[in-house]
Amino acid sequence: MSQALHPPTSLSRSYPWASSPLIVSAPMRVMSGPALAVAVSRAGGLGFLGPGVTTQDMIKDLEEITALVQDLRTSSSAFSTSTTTLPIGVGFQLWSDDLDIAISAIQKFKPCTAWLFAPRNGQKDYDNWSRRIRDASSQTQIWIQIGTLAEAKGLLKGSERPDVIVVQGADAGGHGRAKDGLGLITLLPEVIDALAGSQIPILAAGGIADGRGAAAALCLGADGVVMGTRFLATEEARISRGYQNEIVRACDGAVTTTRTLLYNHLRGTMGWPEEYSPRTIINMSFVEHQAGRSFEELKKDHDEALKAGDAGWGPEGRLATYAGASIGLIHGVKGAAAIVHEVRAGVLERFSAGRPNL
Amino acid sequence: MSQALHPPTSLSRSYPWASSPLIVSAPMRVMSGPALAVAVSRAGGLGFLGPGVTTQDMIKDLEEITALVQDLRTSSSAFSTSTTTLPIGVGFQLWSDDLDIAISAIQKFKPCTAWLFAPRNGQKDYDNWSRRIRDASSQTQIWIQIGTLAEAKGLLKGSERPDVIVVQGADAGGHGRAKDGLGLITLLPEVIDALAGSQIPILAAGGIADGRGAAAALCLGADGVVMGTRFLATEEARISRGYQNEIVRACDGAVTTTRTLLYNHLRGTMGWPEEYSPRTIINMSFVEHQAGRSFEELKKDHDEALKAGDAGWGPEGRLATYAGASIGLIHGVKGAAAIVHEVRAGVLERFSAGRPNL
Repeated sequence: MSQALHPPTSLSRSYPWASSPLIVSAPMRVMSGPALAVAVSRAGGLGFLGPGVTTQDMIKDLEEITALVQDLRTSSSAFSTSTTTLPIGVGFQLWSDDLDIAISAIQKFKPCTAWLFAPRNGQKDYDNWSRRIRDASSQTQIWIQIGTLAEAKGLLKGSERPDVIVVQGADAGGHGRAKDGLGLITLLPEVIDALAGSQIPILAAGGIADGRGAAAALCLGADGVVMGTRFLATEEARISRGYQNEIVRACDGAVTTTRTLLYNHLRGTMGWPEEYSPRTIINMSFVEHQAGRSFEELKKDHDEALKAGDAGWGPEGRLATYAGASIGLIHGVKGAAAIVHEVRAGVLERFSAGRPNL
Repeated sequence: MSQALHPPTSLSRSYPWASSPLIVSAPMRVMSGPALAVAVSRAGGLGFLGPGVTTQDMIKDLEEITALVQDLRTSSSAFSTSTTTLPIGVGFQLWSDDLDIAISAIQKFKPCTAWLFAPRNGQKDYDNWSRRIRDASSQTQIWIQIGTLAEAKGLLKGSERPDVIVVQGADAGGHGRAKDGLGLITLLPEVIDALAGSQIPILAAGGIADGRGAAAALCLGADGVVMGTRFLATEEARISRGYQNEIVRACDGAVTTTRTLLYNHLRGTMGWPEEYSPRTIINMSFVEHQAGRSFEELKKDHDEALKAGDAGWGPEGRLATYAGASIGLIHGVKGAAAIVHEVRAGVLERFSAGRPNL
């Protein structure tokens, strides 16, 4: 509708079951399981399966997704639009996922989309994965997540161009840029300007949890929105109740969350490329770490807390609680479909009856 | 138009010459002088005079503004709406400005608005200043700038309620929260939810430099928007050309700007309350500071650079270049009125012909 806004995109062609604007559930490692991914796509969004503990773990999840989708295709109209791909995306952490296993899974299950993130070797890894994915399943769309202007510009120089670029702002939960991140309000329009002319659709992620944030991202020029933390507080998320309770309880993300590698290390997760660090809700492990308590002691208490189950989370808990700065906007657990519908309705409302506050 | 959006506000009543949505130029210390403030209000926005080097310095500026406004009232229709106050706001840094001088200036010049920021003693200072301002000029609106959820909640507990609350996100330039800031995408809706029911209009600041950011802020629930850095690159700003050139040149604010007290100290500005730190464009002073060069040596080179005039700014320069992370969205010097008109047009466009990208 205007020069300033992003040009029309191929999104509706690639995801015929999805409504506009495209609402996506992020591929959160382990927690974005089959039930969440299918529920989001079924509601007219695009659901993603997150990376598994190992790449091999995704095979069982993809089998489950395939069965769920098959049932839905015969029993309801949700996926009646016949597509040759699975109406679910799959996320990969390039530095830790096994490329050969990933490719054979893509070849076998034909997910509609592969979301690539966190390469060890930058653009070279993106090019390599992209080429292999295109060979294995030509209709699988390739999305690449970036968090800086430099990464965005780098994508234009690669040998393989992504079909979609996801721009992640610094308010995001889980792993994002450790030091050179920026909020969507400045990062997104600057990236969009840099990619102008490429015609690659751009999705926004990081801090979006309701219709307000989604509408704001569209105003900034995004073609659709991704939410992570909001979908952790769903009935379908593969997440412990104690973790989920903490997402709902916590607020004021500026002071109750931080970026730290501590919880990765307490969990035994080593090896993330240097440029990433996860945002997490602060609890006793971090408080005592800051106060100078030794890692060995923190690790011992962390491992004890693991045995405590749901009680291991919370302000007095010790377990990793990766979450975004949007936690203060999340006040309850809902069905994933309700979230997709509410966010979409919130967006449409803001652009329908005229103008907000004008 | 909806429950989710902020309720209608008193802004249009308080600023009858202003168009909707309200577009405000921030009270940037020294740099927001009479010419900029008057140009913004004349264009249907609300212009602010920034704090002076001393509070006394503002008297001369207010005399100049009074004369400019008087001329405009007789020669053009810009301020034909008769108001008993000056159609210009005035900003104060509470920790450094002299309350008695400020009050006598407000009493004499009757600015439409006093913008309060950076108290030494939190809510107590806000209450004290507010009471004195109300006594001195009952029609002067009181705006208070906050950057955290806790500050926002504190305002509801004060003895004097502000007429407007300005929520500043972490992408902002100049002084903002040192450590507990957050981007507008999460901070603004959470603050708005916390203030729901108070009926106090809320303006958004921090990272907004064009119609996209302004429209996004309105979607998030703001009743109007404030821009600082964008107005530094205007013909009317009271700023050195070298500084202004650097605003236009720099991009990628995530890596080219940082928050640091170094430049305050190089300039001899001491005493800011601990919770604040300014965002500035990085140059040689900071690079060498990070590399371990002594303050004394940096100070010597800084003071030499002062004599170099415009050449003292830039990547190889050494002078303070306070600016927001939106620098990558600013590509030239314009008239302030053109900016007000363009941003407003950009907002209206996004809410007029339907919906962006839907």
